[in-house]
Amino acid sequence: MAIHLFPLDGIPPIHPGDDLPALIAEAIRRAQLGARPDDLLVVCQKAVSKAEGRIADLESIEPGPAAGRIAAELGKDARIVEVILRETRRVVRMDQGHLIVETRQGFVCANAGVDESNSLDDHTVILLPENPDASAAALRAALLERYGMDLPVLITDTFGRPWREGLVEFAIGAAGFQPFADYRGRRDLTGRELQHTVVAIADELASAAGLLMEKDRGVPAVLIRGYRYTAGPGAAKELLRDREKDLFR
Amino acid sequence: MAIHLFPLDGIPPIHPGDDLPALIAEAIRRAQLGARPDDLLVVCQKAVSKAEGRIADLESIEPGPAAGRIAAELGKDARIVEVILRETRRVVRMDQGHLIVETRQGFVCANAGVDESNSLDDHTVILLPENPDASAAALRAALLERYGMDLPVLITDTFGRPWREGLVEFAIGAAGFQPFADYRGRRDLTGRELQHTVVAIADELASAAGLLMEKDRGVPAVLIRGYRYTAGPGAAKELLRDREKDLFR
Repeated sequence: MAIHLFPLDGIPPIHPGDDLPALIAEAIRRAQLGARPDDLLVVCQKAVSKAEGRIADLESIEPGPAAGRIAAELGKDARIVEVILRETRRVVRMDQGHLIVETRQGFVCANAGVDESNSLDDHTVILLPENPDASAAALRAALLERYGMDLPVLITDTFGRPWREGLVEFAIGAAGFQPFADYRGRRDLTGRELQHTVVAIADELASAAGLLMEKDRGVPAVLIRGYRYTAGPGAAKELLRDREKDLFR
Repeated sequence: MAIHLFPLDGIPPIHPGDDLPALIAEAIRRAQLGARPDDLLVVCQKAVSKAEGRIADLESIEPGPAAGRIAAELGKDARIVEVILRETRRVVRMDQGHLIVETRQGFVCANAGVDESNSLDDHTVILLPENPDASAAALRAALLERYGMDLPVLITDTFGRPWREGLVEFAIGAAGFQPFADYRGRRDLTGRELQHTVVAIADELASAAGLLMEKDRGVPAVLIRGYRYTAGPGAAKELLRDREKDLFR
């Protein structure tokens, strides 16, 4: 039971209002992959955010005094800090030039996921989708209703991590599958009951797809074939640890 | 350019002193996969640790007073806490029943990676390899010299993360490839220079392989085919952030 990762390339740069389901359905057809019951669709956040118009034009941003002070402290553009603060529920760390926050959606990440790269032009930044689980559900519904493609959908973004260098792809939105594989109560190969093993499958799928989403190529989506996901309702927000249970916030 | 993940199954439970290179070479042959230049081998920590005899027999462990107090505080077995402390360089967090430490190898993880599941019997626990990068290099060298298989090697373990629920597979040892894809200085699709984008490819490869390393099945190794890794020296310890640069330690 192998797993196969197929890049969905040839998708043009996305602009606000673009019909993302149509572009993705077309890319799946172009790749002559069909859409099988063991397929799962992964789409990068940037494509979703751009299509949804989740962008901010820095030329229209008037930084407030807090944004100005934080920008000076961190050596950042005050207009970008203003946009970050508008997307922030709580600042988690502010040090060494980094601004790690809990976003309004509950993600803990640098700069509230506000991103300058692969944007529309040099004065536009891209924000996280307002509700990435809803974005995933809408994309899944459109692919099913309009194109007959019944695919679980995963939306991913590239975040840093504590303790480890480098960024990896994480799940930020999901629809149509369980984000965890829960082994609790099942037995290991020696017959011992597995106690603590809940695997964040959605994040592993995200990182797998990340191997094909190279930053300087246009691969905004990946089809994962052969992974035995558990179908059903499921949302990426289930992956977010409650603040009270978190030892690092 | 698709990526394919093949499980290497049929490998028997590993015991101390087993010839891991022989077992893996045999599994690759049995799977009739050959060994291609675009292949990369992923092996789970437990197989490596067991073959290396990195185990502790709890019946022979005499917990010291610190282990006894910490065990009482956290509700753990004092003998296991004693083993954990022997593998620990520094305790990072001790709260809510969790013991998060920096291991002697530099990994930040729960219980210093000391693991009871898929062990040899009910009084044995498994430790991380003494030097997982050296383990990866030795496995790579043995596969090349004895079987003519020229494969980059990645050793992985399953860790939790701050902020997010669920475990995922991480890189703990590597040989024969660069653990990062560094996009700095390259340009995005709009021509803007990518500033901060260094992707921890080794961790993404680990998580991808993790999709096939189900905890209640015997899949200790995975062959990843088609990922365009950069060959050359490289070690998983490069992934470890220096403590001074870490905002969460």
